[in-house]
Amino acid sequence: MTDFEKFLSPTGRQLTESAIRRMGTVVSRGTDLVSFAPGYPDATLFPWDELSEISASLLDGHDGNALQYGPTRGYAPLLESLIGVLEARGIHATPDRVIITSGSQQGIDLIARVLVSPGDVVMVELPTFTGGIAAFKNAQARLVGVRLDDDGVDLDDLDVVWQREHRAGHTIKLLYLIPNFQNPTGRLLALERRRRVIEWAGRRDVLIVEDDPYGSLYFEDVATAAATRPLAADDEEGRVLYLSTVSKTLAPGFRVGWMVAPPVLIERFDTAKQSTDLTSGVLDQRVVYEAIRRGVIDRLAPALRARYRHKRDVMERAIRAHAGDRLRWSSPKGGFFIWAELPEGRTDLDVLEQALAHGVVFVIGSAFFVDGSGHETIRLSFSAPTSERIEEGVRRLAAVLQPALTSS
Amino acid sequence: MTDFEKFLSPTGRQLTESAIRRMGTVVSRGTDLVSFAPGYPDATLFPWDELSEISASLLDGHDGNALQYGPTRGYAPLLESLIGVLEARGIHATPDRVIITSGSQQGIDLIARVLVSPGDVVMVELPTFTGGIAAFKNAQARLVGVRLDDDGVDLDDLDVVWQREHRAGHTIKLLYLIPNFQNPTGRLLALERRRRVIEWAGRRDVLIVEDDPYGSLYFEDVATAAATRPLAADDEEGRVLYLSTVSKTLAPGFRVGWMVAPPVLIERFDTAKQSTDLTSGVLDQRVVYEAIRRGVIDRLAPALRARYRHKRDVMERAIRAHAGDRLRWSSPKGGFFIWAELPEGRTDLDVLEQALAHGVVFVIGSAFFVDGSGHETIRLSFSAPTSERIEEGVRRLAAVLQPALTSS
Repeated sequence: MTDFEKFLSPTGRQLTESAIRRMGTVVSRGTDLVSFAPGYPDATLFPWDELSEISASLLDGHDGNALQYGPTRGYAPLLESLIGVLEARGIHATPDRVIITSGSQQGIDLIARVLVSPGDVVMVELPTFTGGIAAFKNAQARLVGVRLDDDGVDLDDLDVVWQREHRAGHTIKLLYLIPNFQNPTGRLLALERRRRVIEWAGRRDVLIVEDDPYGSLYFEDVATAAATRPLAADDEEGRVLYLSTVSKTLAPGFRVGWMVAPPVLIERFDTAKQSTDLTSGVLDQRVVYEAIRRGVIDRLAPALRARYRHKRDVMERAIRAHAGDRLRWSSPKGGFFIWAELPEGRTDLDVLEQALAHGVVFVIGSAFFVDGSGHETIRLSFSAPTSERIEEGVRRLAAVLQPALTSS
Repeated sequence: MTDFEKFLSPTGRQLTESAIRRMGTVVSRGTDLVSFAPGYPDATLFPWDELSEISASLLDGHDGNALQYGPTRGYAPLLESLIGVLEARGIHATPDRVIITSGSQQGIDLIARVLVSPGDVVMVELPTFTGGIAAFKNAQARLVGVRLDDDGVDLDDLDVVWQREHRAGHTIKLLYLIPNFQNPTGRLLALERRRRVIEWAGRRDVLIVEDDPYGSLYFEDVATAAATRPLAADDEEGRVLYLSTVSKTLAPGFRVGWMVAPPVLIERFDTAKQSTDLTSGVLDQRVVYEAIRRGVIDRLAPALRARYRHKRDVMERAIRAHAGDRLRWSSPKGGFFIWAELPEGRTDLDVLEQALAHGVVFVIGSAFFVDGSGHETIRLSFSAPTSERIEEGVRRLAAVLQPALTSS
């Protein structure tokens, strides 16, 4: 038998799996499992009729380019239309500063490949998105965590960590942040901290990777669009590499995301993307372009905000009713996640094992920490399940958290 | 201004652009340019009606998963149906040996990332596909060329090159081959050589990357399906990593390809793909699945073979009529390309410059050579333009090749 191990590259040997993806596999196997695991959007909110109409018009055969290879940078009218989308978020971009990516995951991956040398420090939030962790690790980054509090990244800790890494002789290249309704904590980076983070990055000569999939999904009882203003909107040095996507606002099946960055870097990302997948899906890009042009995404946004806010309420009410004395959490102001702290003496791994036996699944908190900590936490996604399933799932989880089961 | 250069990784600094992609950009700018440059399929052959019907049925909203995130490995029914597609090509696969990729370009890229360490030797044909060159180079491979003759890769040279690299102390990991209607030469690897290449790879402990986008596009006047039998069909050691795609047989806009490899490697590719794009386009995969299930791709194949064969004839006739004394080429038995040798004293670069001025474009031959040679060659794609445009383009090219212009 051929020994394949010896053919592996350093990357091939150290590949890091995304805990969320792993949970996704578990979910697809289960039958009556309630899943609070992956941050899937609610598919009943996808604008099926409009998408169907758009697809039909694109596939009428009048424009052969709708299914042809396309430019690596992206479908030109989509790039143009994104200028307006970005403008509405306060970001002044030009087409030479934008590239279409196959989901924002590819944006993170391109950044990791083009910018991160083995051993370079990438600073991340404690906790942070597992897909970010995996992409940077696969580029052999040194991942270093920065503490969060209720208002987002802790600026004192940010500089303490930077100084420690700097003194140790490491090259600190990137700070990876999810300022809006952070994955996994749901936290919103306070506005005044946003300006200070940009200043800090300038002072310390670090680039910021701003991952913003949830920005438009603020809950109107407690947050406003103004509170989600991207760092990139106030970045005057081109220091912020901004990522967003339609995965949470239209549908993830299209794999259409975008990155905003200085032109000199966009050119590199373009070249790197050429050998990665040549082009993102061409029909997908056209559908997304039409959805933007026809106002579908804008019209949809208030309904998304209302629905996810409602689901947050349902989950919080259920937790309060069934496990209010066992879980601690702070109410998210937007996005898909409730980040909860387990009762003392319980760990994410032991609770997960019992939860699976009770028919409910979530992502263990420790998967989001690059320092091995976080075992007292879990991430509960309320975005995909129905209200009934949210209630049922919380009941199952509550049963697992009963004191009687602690010793089992 | 921020100095972005210093943020680049070694990969970021050495990124290799695909010459074909660059030509694609030129083309998209031109107005009355005849393009023989990119290997685009003929969009009038895309089965618009069936695709439109399939899309409509998928977007009726009955199955929310049609636009949801999907498994990284691929849409399970598609993976299952590919077993039959592969079986028809003589390859006995099981679902654990298959992964969906975002075009076969992503397959090459995943192989490069998971298997190639900086400095590892990847042996390639002289000339070979620029997308393969770029992906392996971006993994910092040492690319080493092996000569081709009319029947494909030269087996004597293959071992001579291997021995030279081996003696020099290099690790030789991969041999990248396009056995069917090779890009760019259009050549077909002779059947008896196929078995000998597999034996050679076993003896020298090298893995073969078999890139097979054109296999079903044989021209029935000079070739048969049997002549395109993949190496993977006769591989008993799991030594052949097989890549294919619907880009040439259905439409490239879907970005759906697949790779067949030993399960232990498929798991690594799966993990690497997680952090690359999470999943290939979900709707795209479903459309392709339906196109396979409903027999669309199989029904289409004879028409594709006939049309591309006809276009080859048109191009050859035109060359014979207008530049028969100036170009030398061997007639391709399938695929998209005529590989031509320029008259003595002319180089691909000088002819391209004049050709652009005359309103015709192609890819310079030297772009396909990893050893800096090939300047006496050009690649002419006959796949996309109409017969009239092929004739017009050849006339323009012929004008450039007139002896009177040699000294200009």
